[in-house]
Amino acid sequence: MTDVPDETRERINTDPYCDTLGIDVVDLDPGFARTELTVTEGLRTFPGGTNGWEVDSRADAAFAAASNSRGDTALALETNISYLGAGDTGETLAATAEETHVAGRTAEGEVVVTDEGGGRVATFRGRVYRP
Amino acid sequence: MTDVPDETRERINTDPYCDTLGIDVVDLDPGFARTELTVTEGLRTFPGGTNGWEVDSRADAAFAAASNSRGDTALALETNISYLGAGDTGETLAATAEETHVAGRTAEGEVVVTDEGGGRVATFRGRVYRP
Amino acid sequence: MTDVPDETRERINTDPYCDTLGIDVVDLDPGFARTELTVTEGLRTFPGGTNGWEVDSRADAAFAAASNSRGDTALALETNISYLGAGDTGETLAATAEETHVAGRTAEGEVVVTDEGGGRVATFRGRVYRP
Amino acid sequence: MTDVPDETRERINTDPYCDTLGIDVVDLDPGFARTELTVTEGLRTFPGGTNGWEVDSRADAAFAAASNSRGDTALALETNISYLGAGDTGETLAATAEETHVAGRTAEGEVVVTDEGGGRVATFRGRVYRP
Repeated sequence: MTDVPDETRERINTDPYCDTLGIDVVDLDPGFARTELTVTEGLRTFPGGTNGWEVDSRADAAFAAASNSRGDTALALETNISYLGAGDTGETLAATAEETHVAGRTAEGEVVVTDEGGGRVATFRGRVYRP
Repeated sequence: MTDVPDETRERINTDPYCDTLGIDVVDLDPGFARTELTVTEGLRTFPGGTNGWEVDSRADAAFAAASNSRGDTALALETNISYLGAGDTGETLAATAEETHVAGRTAEGEVVVTDEGGGRVATFRGRVYRP
Repeated sequence: MTDVPDETRERINTDPYCDTLGIDVVDLDPGFARTELTVTEGLRTFPGGTNGWEVDSRADAAFAAASNSRGDTALALETNISYLGAGDTGETLAATAEETHVAGRTAEGEVVVTDEGGGRVATFRGRVYRP
Repeated sequence: MTDVPDETRERINTDPYCDTLGIDVVDLDPGFARTELTVTEGLRTFPGGTNGWEVDSRADAAFAAASNSRGDTALALETNISYLGAGDTGETLAATAEETHVAGRTAEGEVVVTDEGGGRVATFRGRVYRP
């Protein structure tokens, strides 16, 4: 397994979107990424409690990090997410992304978002294209 | 058609997540919302150009606004998005959300994201539950 | 608008899968198709009543017909469906498919499945690739 | 782990839809199912080669079998599928379904469709509701 190129790692770790949302990329390998985000009052939305956006942002970030980890730019084609649970303010949710299939210029990845007790909060699946 | 309750409108217009991302809810009616977001350098991500996250955040925000516009809290169950095009830095993308079906406690909504020329940038579909 | 090539129309109208399931392609234009299927006892499944498979088969058939209507072969990349209602045995459900976006070699289509009263039974969205 | 109730097993094994399409449920446990289907000329469709419908039918069948394996009726809410590869006429494709999350009245399942060499042909994810 080749490692993540240095400049790719640097670009992912300093991503302004993740920074804006307080998402940390805590683990990064080729085809794999893990992000964490603490649910803050400032990110809570309309319904109160964790909402879809926050969970989705996190899953999206992990998916993008894993998909771009090999150094080639990957553009999302399609993603979908199922919301299964919720997180409380102050809780740290983790999103673990893995590539599940690579064929030619497209790749598929899955992200599982879990709460501190390891319970599944969301499942995300996506497809990217490497131009 | 009843109007959007004042406190619902207020809550949606002052949402901290939208604020963080610079998303404006420019139109809001029962079962309908339109958001705008200008693509900024600060929001550009790994691959350069508009990326999925930004477009998804926007579509998610419009969907949540439309789904919560009737005053009852709506929790996302499932959402999916197809990325069809891209926006440039400085360009304003609009996300137009409409409820397409309401039955019992669940509702379905569709969001179309368009660029300044009216071209479709993404299509988003989601399902919510009103507890 | 150019018309559907004769051999494409012929191939779609004599499709063995549609034949097996009793799906009729009742309308076909470039980028548009409408299929009908009567819910039969023989097609009812595990849970009783119309089930996802029947509705999905129908939506899939309409989507494939619309996507292939221009004469070029279209291969499905991703599809998703939301089940919103159900049909009774003996009822005829219609699936109306329309291309919503065409860009380069990929196209997006949406299918709405309705019951005899016009109520929405399911919404389907898919993406195809034309090699 | 309790076993699959006899009448549930019987109902699943004699399902008329599976019968029509030639789908065999070869393995069934609570929350788990495996189906097989040989790609036949009669099931090939518009584009030639295995098409989405066949793969989707199979994944749908495995998902429904796994979701109904506990004896309670499960109705599909949402499903999505990514087509990653293809099968040839005469090849037997397997669809392996597992419940990935159960919470209250909804459950999530994932289906992986593989060809004879074990290569991933499609990934399917769905959500059911138990009324």
